[in-house]
Amino acid sequence: MSADAAAVEQSGQPEGPAAYAARMERAAVAAVDAGLAGLLVTPGPDLGWLTGYRPHTSERLTALLITPGRKPQLLVPALERPDAEQAPGARALAITGWTDGQDPYAALAPLLAESGRYGVSDNAWALHLLALQRARPRLAFGAFTEVMPMLRAVKDAYEVERLAAAGAAADSVYEDIVQLRFSGRRESEVAADLARLLREYGHSQVDFTIVGSGPNGANPHHSSGERVIEDGDMVVMDFGGLLDGYGSDTTRTVHVGEPSAEERKVHDLVREAQQAAFEAVRPGVACQEIDRVARQVIRRAGYGEYFIHRTGHGIGVTTHEPPYLVEGEHLPLVPGMCFSIEPGIYLPGRFGVRIEDIVTCTESAGRRLNNTARELRVVA
Amino acid sequence: MSADAAAVEQSGQPEGPAAYAARMERAAVAAVDAGLAGLLVTPGPDLGWLTGYRPHTSERLTALLITPGRKPQLLVPALERPDAEQAPGARALAITGWTDGQDPYAALAPLLAESGRYGVSDNAWALHLLALQRARPRLAFGAFTEVMPMLRAVKDAYEVERLAAAGAAADSVYEDIVQLRFSGRRESEVAADLARLLREYGHSQVDFTIVGSGPNGANPHHSSGERVIEDGDMVVMDFGGLLDGYGSDTTRTVHVGEPSAEERKVHDLVREAQQAAFEAVRPGVACQEIDRVARQVIRRAGYGEYFIHRTGHGIGVTTHEPPYLVEGEHLPLVPGMCFSIEPGIYLPGRFGVRIEDIVTCTESAGRRLNNTARELRVVA
Repeated sequence: MSADAAAVEQSGQPEGPAAYAARMERAAVAAVDAGLAGLLVTPGPDLGWLTGYRPHTSERLTALLITPGRKPQLLVPALERPDAEQAPGARALAITGWTDGQDPYAALAPLLAESGRYGVSDNAWALHLLALQRARPRLAFGAFTEVMPMLRAVKDAYEVERLAAAGAAADSVYEDIVQLRFSGRRESEVAADLARLLREYGHSQVDFTIVGSGPNGANPHHSSGERVIEDGDMVVMDFGGLLDGYGSDTTRTVHVGEPSAEERKVHDLVREAQQAAFEAVRPGVACQEIDRVARQVIRRAGYGEYFIHRTGHGIGVTTHEPPYLVEGEHLPLVPGMCFSIEPGIYLPGRFGVRIEDIVTCTESAGRRLNNTARELRVVA
Repeated sequence: MSADAAAVEQSGQPEGPAAYAARMERAAVAAVDAGLAGLLVTPGPDLGWLTGYRPHTSERLTALLITPGRKPQLLVPALERPDAEQAPGARALAITGWTDGQDPYAALAPLLAESGRYGVSDNAWALHLLALQRARPRLAFGAFTEVMPMLRAVKDAYEVERLAAAGAAADSVYEDIVQLRFSGRRESEVAADLARLLREYGHSQVDFTIVGSGPNGANPHHSSGERVIEDGDMVVMDFGGLLDGYGSDTTRTVHVGEPSAEERKVHDLVREAQQAAFEAVRPGVACQEIDRVARQVIRRAGYGEYFIHRTGHGIGVTTHEPPYLVEGEHLPLVPGMCFSIEPGIYLPGRFGVRIEDIVTCTESAGRRLNNTARELRVVA
């Protein structure tokens, strides 16, 4: 843990009122830099990150409006106002309630400029956005990922250490799971063990526990099923969730019993691609370049057509957020960015291999937040 | 259970391919009736209900396009295509994949008309909607709740019986919880018991377990906290989740020890309002009328200002959906609609009372899907 993060933690207020107020101030400055009239933030990771307020998303409009030079405004359903007032960041907010039967969009409209462009949370509901477009037809809206991808992309020292803690917990899960038996058990049983271990190592939320054995491993998003794992199977395990509000996401591919020469070769190739991409991380490199580095390793070995997804995604208070390591993404890496590096090879009907670490970009290079061995592990 | 629902259940295919195909066909007809060029459905309850496909919502576009007269099109991230092809409703779909690095909106645009109006899922992400608006600037979009509130509002016999089963399970939870001790325990402990019981009675997902004791009961959306429940407290319990994919949502207010005359009076009043609203349910009555009936009972007794939310909301594969029983909602009740009736009185700093049942509109009247006693129950 950095000295900064330790100090914050000792204060008992790692995400206290001052921290949230500072985030909202930085967001307002960033809005100006992006040429925006303001930011419209709806329930979900953006609102939680900016204010500490985490209501359910719902058909009732809750919206935080950040306007440069003004106190941030939070409009909430009246019956949720007592909860909103308890939020850690509430002191910095002007909170207004609207009551069932009133038109919440009419209540929000006067707080918005007549014209100009607003950034809006990626996950804002169409129901709300369309009503606001009707209420303020001369406004333009752009999703944060499009118009302000950097809003949450650069983590401070405290956040990097939270992600490191989540990564370390996921690493412990991996070290434990490989001690257990695979052969003769269903994928779903191993997935249940992963979920249990994630919780035991401190995760408050389990988001995914992918266990893809044999041919199922060739489907990168296969979750887990009733297939019984057999001797001779490759098994892709991709798991993660939230610990203290920050995400984990790691993948290792293990083999039940001794692998064949081809299986070793494919696994070595993915490991080489992952290592090369990791070594390419440094400030100023475009996101797509990391993807290209990983892809080139796999393509040169003749497996290019079997690497069927992007190389990685950002991670923070969600497990998928900017920056995306994908062809076409020109954003440069910046110290504090945290993202997955997860190349894979998927041979339809046969097996798949993926290796994934969360990596943060430091002032000079990459730093892995997952540190379990990446060599092909033989399990029982 | 109705004969229809029983037959469907015996077939082992209550929501098999034919059922999903029929839903999509009905949706296409409804789109024409609503003057829409088509429907754009994104991951969440609409997509699950129409196709049985339930991917996570994410930054990667997944979209079902229902166009009258054409086979429904499902555009998915290529790496999720194997999962999509396994969905129960997949046979009726033309499935197309897009690959990371491609522009999914450019892939979807040619499937959309040049102009006209599309209905779109309420919870479609702004990220996706804004990109589609850019890709097809002459199209108009309207959220389902606005342009097609009836899409999922009228349940068939199978669905009503699923909701009845979820309601019966919630009733069992209530019957069990009132046998437990309240006094001296924290709200959070009672909430944990509610969650455990919901699972024991078959819920696969617990969505909320509100326990508001004493003054906390006066905040309708208070979740549960560390307050220790005391003798003399009113305790509002509002809990529910999903059982076999359909929602439960019921509220009872109990009293620890003997209530005061005022507490009895307020509880009687809420019960009277809930009963009056229930008795007003019949086909053709406007949704807002049910709200007015409940509100009038409470207003006449002088407590109008303390009933601070709408009277109810629809329920189905989600726990909040059309129809909404709220002032301004002119939709008429239709046989098969299922919704909550949940008036309440909230006395700030003192206590709250809410009584909630799920009710379905039959051909002639209301039928309660929650059937535990509504009299004020004294607990220990």
